[in-house]
Amino acid sequence: MKIAIVFGGVSFEHEISIVSSIAMKDVLKNELVYIFLDENREFYHIPTDVIKSKLFSSGDYKKFDKLSIAKNGFYKKGGLFSKEKPLDFDIALTLMHGGDGEDGVVASLFEFYNIPYLAPRVEACVVSSNKFLTKGYASSVDVNVVDYKYFTKGDEVKVDEFPVILKPVKLGSSIGVSIVKSKEELDYALDVAYEFDDAIIIEPFISGVKEYNLAGTKVNGEFKFSILEEPQKAEFLDFDKKYLDFSRTSKAKEIDLGEELNTKVKEAFKRIYNNLFEGSLIRCDFFVIDNEVYLNEINSIPGSMANYLFDDFNALLNEVASNLPKRKHIPISYEYVNKIHSAKGK
Amino acid sequence: MKIAIVFGGVSFEHEISIVSSIAMKDVLKNELVYIFLDENREFYHIPTDVIKSKLFSSGDYKKFDKLSIAKNGFYKKGGLFSKEKPLDFDIALTLMHGGDGEDGVVASLFEFYNIPYLAPRVEACVVSSNKFLTKGYASSVDVNVVDYKYFTKGDEVKVDEFPVILKPVKLGSSIGVSIVKSKEELDYALDVAYEFDDAIIIEPFISGVKEYNLAGTKVNGEFKFSILEEPQKAEFLDFDKKYLDFSRTSKAKEIDLGEELNTKVKEAFKRIYNNLFEGSLIRCDFFVIDNEVYLNEINSIPGSMANYLFDDFNALLNEVASNLPKRKHIPISYEYVNKIHSAKGK
Repeated sequence: MKIAIVFGGVSFEHEISIVSSIAMKDVLKNELVYIFLDENREFYHIPTDVIKSKLFSSGDYKKFDKLSIAKNGFYKKGGLFSKEKPLDFDIALTLMHGGDGEDGVVASLFEFYNIPYLAPRVEACVVSSNKFLTKGYASSVDVNVVDYKYFTKGDEVKVDEFPVILKPVKLGSSIGVSIVKSKEELDYALDVAYEFDDAIIIEPFISGVKEYNLAGTKVNGEFKFSILEEPQKAEFLDFDKKYLDFSRTSKAKEIDLGEELNTKVKEAFKRIYNNLFEGSLIRCDFFVIDNEVYLNEINSIPGSMANYLFDDFNALLNEVASNLPKRKHIPISYEYVNKIHSAKGK
Repeated sequence: MKIAIVFGGVSFEHEISIVSSIAMKDVLKNELVYIFLDENREFYHIPTDVIKSKLFSSGDYKKFDKLSIAKNGFYKKGGLFSKEKPLDFDIALTLMHGGDGEDGVVASLFEFYNIPYLAPRVEACVVSSNKFLTKGYASSVDVNVVDYKYFTKGDEVKVDEFPVILKPVKLGSSIGVSIVKSKEELDYALDVAYEFDDAIIIEPFISGVKEYNLAGTKVNGEFKFSILEEPQKAEFLDFDKKYLDFSRTSKAKEIDLGEELNTKVKEAFKRIYNNLFEGSLIRCDFFVIDNEVYLNEINSIPGSMANYLFDDFNALLNEVASNLPKRKHIPISYEYVNKIHSAKGK
């Protein structure tokens, strides 16, 4: 199976996407095709043997072939009298962690142009890329979340008890996130967050809370889980540290929380995944507080696909790729238009 | 302002979209441009003076010019040596009530290709086109919803008390919806609903409940509401009756629920709209039960834009069109890539 990795994108996480995508060369045995989406929303085909991060920061990617997206795939321009040539691959793997990827824009393009893709479908993207919607969704499927308040630009923000953690609703990778320890720090944190988004959530900051990451997917109705990891973290991961995380390819260390908690974490994952996330491999980050499991966030396109959490990532990804959700056929009918015309006698 | 009405789409509501779009000729004074999306996901430019529903049922629309969608707009093919010509319009008005429209697919295309549009943004589409997500969202913004249970294909469905109303989560216009009066009717209703969707919700069917519709939008931070209407309905509206509803252009009759309830309905609308639905004009359908307001559903692209609920629909739509949300500039940086390269000394 030939996999096209689609990366880059108009996103605060553009760079992370590049690093994450290059990491795939080390962990996937498939023939890979690299499709870069640049800041002008132009697609380029980057040859796999020369790809490196500097190509993008230098602008040198522009010397490679431009692609257009159209029905059933990506196409290279032909000459004046030759036809466009389709780029050869079997499925696309979207590896854009913020805008264009996790927000559902490119998933919509793939739906529209009938391109098979391994990534969350549009609904799953929207739910997981907006922390406010994630909270509501988790509650709907009976998964605990930490209490929160939701504010939009212009709302009066009142905080009763510090410290709190303040997050723009729509960005990942800790961008725009602040821990606010006192009233004096609040205005600055609000300014920072509103720089990135018009809506924020504020949660109590629970010092010393343990976070655990579990990745997984579903193949033919059966869940496939990664090991559970307790990620390294400072007070919370800032962008620099998370960035390095996106290039991880060496196997993580498993943590055992005991049977009861291990099961609770998996049950919570299943409730989140079912069935909104079909077609994707996601990583859920959980807190454990007083022996209960809370969802922190859903990474619907996790950094380097969370490969480092799986025993045989290559085999699993290929299994998912071979079992993508089928599109439902929607018949177009003109029954009612015809009925009206025959009633009118014309 | 020249408005491009984008309609059709791969959708169970394809026909309704046609009827709804043609109705715009009667209620908008703007110069209109019609862009039809057919079942093969090809766009066509239909001349405004000849548009009628029969053009589509007969397939005659194919004799008009094909369009391609690309950066900043829609384009007509030029000759062999002439350039593609952009179709001239100021903003697009998406009038697809089901798939491709309300599900966020075309909104994503417009985001991707930088085309200004009057319609819900992608997140708003996803939340309002999925009844399960709508329920969760309404609860998150403190708007009442009728109790419900959520099931996906394969789940065991147990109903304690009949009658219930059973709905596929993702379709509008009552498609696939059944009122189930007894256990014996349940399997058939499930088959019908699962024909259209893999997930359903089941609610108690409250006989004789009153439904009220309120449409509205926000212009420069200020809410603009329509009159409140109590729509005509049989036990519940079936597709035929709703279909006729989509061509409505004559003014509806206002209903006054008294100051307290009128205010409650508007407050609920505001909480739903804010700020997820910016850039769109939506219709919310509410129930009133025991003097409390419950959200039934959000029509994020209402039939014929709910023009019949507004005193001066033409003026309002033009106001919204002139105040569409601005896109945030997302700077692409290569700070971290550069940092790594300078650390590595290459």
